[in-house]
Amino acid sequence: VTIIGIGLIGGSLALDLRQAGLAERVVGVSRSAENRRLATERGLTTETTNDLAAALRAADLAVLAVPVTAIVGLLPQVAQHAPDGCLVTDVGSVKGPILAAGDAAFPDGRFVAGHPIAGSEHSGPAAARTGLFVQHTWIATPSARTSVDAEERITALWRAVGATTLRMSAAWHDDVFATVSHLPHLVAYALMDAVMTLEQGGERVKFSAGGLRDFTRIAGSDPVMWRDIFLMNRAPLLQAVEAYRAALDRLEAAIRAGDGEALSRVFAQARLARKELGHRS
Amino acid sequence: VTIIGIGLIGGSLALDLRQAGLAERVVGVSRSAENRRLATERGLTTETTNDLAAALRAADLAVLAVPVTAIVGLLPQVAQHAPDGCLVTDVGSVKGPILAAGDAAFPDGRFVAGHPIAGSEHSGPAAARTGLFVQHTWIATPSARTSVDAEERITALWRAVGATTLRMSAAWHDDVFATVSHLPHLVAYALMDAVMTLEQGGERVKFSAGGLRDFTRIAGSDPVMWRDIFLMNRAPLLQAVEAYRAALDRLEAAIRAGDGEALSRVFAQARLARKELGHRS
Repeated sequence: VTIIGIGLIGGSLALDLRQAGLAERVVGVSRSAENRRLATERGLTTETTNDLAAALRAADLAVLAVPVTAIVGLLPQVAQHAPDGCLVTDVGSVKGPILAAGDAAFPDGRFVAGHPIAGSEHSGPAAARTGLFVQHTWIATPSARTSVDAEERITALWRAVGATTLRMSAAWHDDVFATVSHLPHLVAYALMDAVMTLEQGGERVKFSAGGLRDFTRIAGSDPVMWRDIFLMNRAPLLQAVEAYRAALDRLEAAIRAGDGEALSRVFAQARLARKELGHRS
Repeated sequence: VTIIGIGLIGGSLALDLRQAGLAERVVGVSRSAENRRLATERGLTTETTNDLAAALRAADLAVLAVPVTAIVGLLPQVAQHAPDGCLVTDVGSVKGPILAAGDAAFPDGRFVAGHPIAGSEHSGPAAARTGLFVQHTWIATPSARTSVDAEERITALWRAVGATTLRMSAAWHDDVFATVSHLPHLVAYALMDAVMTLEQGGERVKFSAGGLRDFTRIAGSDPVMWRDIFLMNRAPLLQAVEAYRAALDRLEAAIRAGDGEALSRVFAQARLARKELGHRS
């Protein structure tokens, strides 16, 4: 197995595949010498390299675990160097453009677009750990071109490392994650930016108890990963922002009008969302 | 000591005062029979009542620990029933209007406006616990009228239950907390409302991992308390919303323009805020 990108997701998957005896050789590919050193030191992979072509030469499976823009950029190179029959999958948080690029690079349908829902504010090989995917969901977003056999084998692999698996269209995936993941990150970044831009922003932040403090986990997330997600999922994200602005307008109008009942209606929606979450971990 | 409102804050303070031997009798006042029963059952107070006048008759100290609008409404009644020399303080999250009402009700300056920064998504007497204020900040917002002696004694009390104490003007307090506490709650409520209002909102929410999930703690907070805070701190909060909209505009424009560098600048601000927080628990 060749894992391209040995950060939190790639490194954790490498570790799980080895510990479960699912792969004899796990080759980690990274341009960062420091990340290669860390992956070796922590025993995430059996070997590491900066040479993509060499890493793919004997691969049965290639996993792209780099930021979404890099995945799209690398797919043609993976197609060029991976042997026939090598399955290819990715872990990107935006699926539409990746699925299109993967289908173009692998017309035989052996690219399976997927997304393990196991983010964290920690990133890099230092954050990788076993069991990261246990009781988390892995989502396959196959196209009409995707090989059923390839999808089944990749699905079995994620189940083997503890994930619950399901499938949905790439378009619905990108719409859903624009609202429940990308928008919340955007909202948190805007909040941090707003507070820091105000007079004595740094001084204000020191008084965060609950409230702002809950947003800091998000603000600690990998900035390159999020920049790429925001830019790649642009259209669904901007639609989500529009819905969010409408909700913000409703709240602001209620406050301006001193309308306690309207505020209570919004709070009730929030409690409903919380209840939905309670039914699923 | 008479504590009016025996929820998370009032109940925890009652417990601490008794356990530290700082008060022989702690009378809990609540209109809710259920809350009175819970306070008695959990041993938060030595006695409970619904009769404010009776509860105040022999009090050395009265603590108002109800939602901010109720504090303003109760201050004249406390002034009417509390004996001369009884100190009075509150725990409200908005200080300007409460300080004005307290100064009007107690022209001799024995009302000390204060705010313990120890919120939680849990509320009510069931959530009360010892040590809630340890290593948390209590803020006094005295006016020119506030008695220096009264302020010193109330400050000593909060120190005795483990809080770090400091003082600031009520105006600066309300401005700071509009940005680091009230705005984040408003932003979280707007987000939950936006997602739930979208097509298949409940279905979307089920896919929250990080991201939306981090906002649910906030959305579980006491709705009456937050309705009152939003309405009472209206002007500073609406100013904070304006700054927030500007930050949201910047982010949206950067995404629309595909401007990765502008996004990185916003992320850097967020990391700066996170760093500020790291210096203070």
